[in-house]
Amino acid sequence: MAKLVKNAAGRMVPVAINENAATPYAGVGKYVPTGRKVGTLIRSAADYPSDGDKRTETIKQALINAGLKDGMTISTHHHLRNGDYVANAVFAAAAELGVKDLRWFPSASFPCHAGMIEHMENGVIHHIEGSMNGPLGDYCTAGKMRGMAVLRSHGGRYQAVQDGEVHIDIAVIAAPTADPFGNATGDRGPTACGLLGFALADSEYADHVIAVTDNLVPFPCVPWQIQGNNVDQVVVMDSIGDASKIISGTTQITKSPDRLLIAELTARFCDEAGIVQNGFSFQAGAGGTALSFALFLRDMMRERKIKARFVRGGSTQYLVDMLEEGLTDYILDGQTFDLEGVRSMRENSGHVNTSPFTSYNWHGKGNFASMLDAVVLGATEVDVNFNANVVTHSDGRLLHGIGGWQNCLASKCTILPIPSFRDRIPVVVDSVTTLCGPGELVDVIVTERGIAINPLRRDLLERLQGSSLPIRPIGEIKAEVEDICGGAAAKPDLSDEVVAAIKWVDGTVIDCVRQIR
Amino acid sequence: MAKLVKNAAGRMVPVAINENAATPYAGVGKYVPTGRKVGTLIRSAADYPSDGDKRTETIKQALINAGLKDGMTISTHHHLRNGDYVANAVFAAAAELGVKDLRWFPSASFPCHAGMIEHMENGVIHHIEGSMNGPLGDYCTAGKMRGMAVLRSHGGRYQAVQDGEVHIDIAVIAAPTADPFGNATGDRGPTACGLLGFALADSEYADHVIAVTDNLVPFPCVPWQIQGNNVDQVVVMDSIGDASKIISGTTQITKSPDRLLIAELTARFCDEAGIVQNGFSFQAGAGGTALSFALFLRDMMRERKIKARFVRGGSTQYLVDMLEEGLTDYILDGQTFDLEGVRSMRENSGHVNTSPFTSYNWHGKGNFASMLDAVVLGATEVDVNFNANVVTHSDGRLLHGIGGWQNCLASKCTILPIPSFRDRIPVVVDSVTTLCGPGELVDVIVTERGIAINPLRRDLLERLQGSSLPIRPIGEIKAEVEDICGGAAAKPDLSDEVVAAIKWVDGTVIDCVRQIR
Repeated sequence: MAKLVKNAAGRMVPVAINENAATPYAGVGKYVPTGRKVGTLIRSAADYPSDGDKRTETIKQALINAGLKDGMTISTHHHLRNGDYVANAVFAAAAELGVKDLRWFPSASFPCHAGMIEHMENGVIHHIEGSMNGPLGDYCTAGKMRGMAVLRSHGGRYQAVQDGEVHIDIAVIAAPTADPFGNATGDRGPTACGLLGFALADSEYADHVIAVTDNLVPFPCVPWQIQGNNVDQVVVMDSIGDASKIISGTTQITKSPDRLLIAELTARFCDEAGIVQNGFSFQAGAGGTALSFALFLRDMMRERKIKARFVRGGSTQYLVDMLEEGLTDYILDGQTFDLEGVRSMRENSGHVNTSPFTSYNWHGKGNFASMLDAVVLGATEVDVNFNANVVTHSDGRLLHGIGGWQNCLASKCTILPIPSFRDRIPVVVDSVTTLCGPGELVDVIVTERGIAINPLRRDLLERLQGSSLPIRPIGEIKAEVEDICGGAAAKPDLSDEVVAAIKWVDGTVIDCVRQIR
Repeated sequence: MAKLVKNAAGRMVPVAINENAATPYAGVGKYVPTGRKVGTLIRSAADYPSDGDKRTETIKQALINAGLKDGMTISTHHHLRNGDYVANAVFAAAAELGVKDLRWFPSASFPCHAGMIEHMENGVIHHIEGSMNGPLGDYCTAGKMRGMAVLRSHGGRYQAVQDGEVHIDIAVIAAPTADPFGNATGDRGPTACGLLGFALADSEYADHVIAVTDNLVPFPCVPWQIQGNNVDQVVVMDSIGDASKIISGTTQITKSPDRLLIAELTARFCDEAGIVQNGFSFQAGAGGTALSFALFLRDMMRERKIKARFVRGGSTQYLVDMLEEGLTDYILDGQTFDLEGVRSMRENSGHVNTSPFTSYNWHGKGNFASMLDAVVLGATEVDVNFNANVVTHSDGRLLHGIGGWQNCLASKCTILPIPSFRDRIPVVVDSVTTLCGPGELVDVIVTERGIAINPLRRDLLERLQGSSLPIRPIGEIKAEVEDICGGAAAKPDLSDEVVAAIKWVDGTVIDCVRQIR
């Protein structure tokens, strides 16, 4: 059983993760990093083809060339989302080569990767570090994975690689378009997905980098979202993914009256809080409520002729419309959620690529996230101190990744528009199942039963005094919801076994996930 | 007196440079680097303003904040060329602060930096490492600089910083446009210069980075050629440079009949060598002969409806015309030499920024330079074995930087179009005053008296057999020129004192420059 220690948030967390010492969470901004970023091996152009042609016939041969062996770490990326073929092809090749005990380090995994369970069962993969959406998360909380999973935010993943906490032996980058030198872009080609930003750290810091494409173009591939100067080999395969499954499944505005109400309340709150003014900025996800919020905001901006300086993606047609209508100078995009986003990225000079380095890396000289005037995020649970959970459900199942969620909490006003209950289980709770975000960074919770402002934000409370908005103490909302649902959420039945560690943005351990009994 | 050793090119070179051990040149592609690139200090966003505003009032205060002290290395960049105000302002501030023995590490220096001589006289600057165009080079070869100068190519400068050979304490980046977070671009603003690529390594690897601008825009500054995530402070000053002196002085086509002949012969050679065909690539500098060559080539391409895949800048209106006329898919630009280049960079998606990392860094996973079908370069001297000099004149004076010259030698066909003599001094010599480029990488020399093909390029000799072009052995051209000039160039009167080391692209020492007696 893992040795645990109580961290600054009062959570019991493991002192070691897969035999490497781990640092307990010390509080927001409290952990002071020391040392130096990873310096990668110095290469010589003499060891690479002078004509720039780095092609290798197959993924299997590329893995052999890369020196794949037992226990190595292989990274992949989730730009192709639930349509990805590449990660599966990589581990199929590794299995064929008889390699064991690999660490898979995806930026995220999806149901299409369920086949990795077999690779874990037969020993090819030792464990997964990265978001596990769906079946792999279930597998993890069932206690079946040999190693401990590690969940990181997008920024935390960049930080972990940059700081040498995770050493990537071989990075495999699915590239919708690439040239033989390894320059690659996601914004065009039959399997276009928009950005390749989640592979940036891997391309910079991995020992060996393989780009895999189904759309090879003559040098130069422009733009080069991934720089060929960081790439060792290029593999061409027939298809890197199922284009129809690349776009996110969640990019529809909500039709639920409750969620529409929440979205509208959120927009009105932003307005009354003085956030919506010329030159402001906001970020909203691609979930139904967040999209509806963006539309309410858009109408407000149109009506009052207000223009944002920038909005942050995940981009969707809704943000693209705002850009093309002149309601914002820029979309600073972290990932493209639909094909309109991909098109806009190609066509609009105001639709700008960002990366976890620019936007989210806590161990940098600042990042974009803290400059946002408002950010609108989801949550699976929130407690009365505004602490929030985004990875597990109240039954203990690990079903979601962290994404950029933790990183976005750094904004000037972080708002969680959430239903007060789901499936008759209260979302507002006494204590979250898994702590992902410290309450001091969550400023406002908007439910269909009212808006709760974090008491730490006296400025917001004062500003909203006398508002017609239903502003209420969070405890009051919680009590009302428990009345409706017939009591608080049942405690999940968890064992003491730690199956996953949740990292904070600075690489410390903020909480862990237990095996479900 | 410096201890010397004979390197693989037969040149005597110092075994140490300013008390640091130096590696003698071992031959093209022979030096095998070991070790790791620099890992910079891990930072925390907690130490930077969360609103992203990194502004400091003055350069002097910024240097104090950066912890400037005796013996440190300060880097600046030559994007503003002979119109730069920033480097002078930095060392004026350092002088005011009473700091001594600094190493100035510019990407290049120009006559506008002549005031640095005073800083060297009074001890503020110990020595300069970087190209010295004009008076500072003269000062160096007069033996007046306390330390040994080091000249590197653009790629070699990136390599030296990346590999930790040069540790930059404080990088100061003149930024024609920037935001308070430090994102910066050179392609717009009253002092627009195009690219900021020469500052890339510095922004990535320096301990402390200061962006200095005269055109502050609200976040985000797009494009961010320099990423604010690498910047510590932003200083706004009234003017960072004299816009009229930013453009290169050499971007006029030649009117000399001899040089026009050389340019035409060069273009015809490329044609007969089979280089000029659909999808080809070339690079030519901004000198008068190189520009004329590009025009001859353009006419050839127009006539035969040939389209290049890419041409490499330094960009000028001539390359921009080719791009906009559809004669090339891309300009891959390393620096913009005139305002049309700057405009095109802003407006044409086919006009793409490159950097010494992408184009020239020998210690990378390949680079762009070796993919060029043909490159056309200048030289001050060439010997009968095709070894070439680009930094000193035959009188021993160090008057030019290396620029991308050494890096470009990696191309598939390197052509030096040069007059056979200048001011009645032969350019074709028995032995170059300073060896900058090994003869095995120089394929062709084009003079007004004939074209000499390197005997190592049997393929070219065969291909050109029976050509109507005046192809001659280089010795024959040399003899003819000596007849005209009344003998070989006089040997310069040099002391044994080494005043500057010339690095090869891999960081080894290929030659050195002696003090003039």
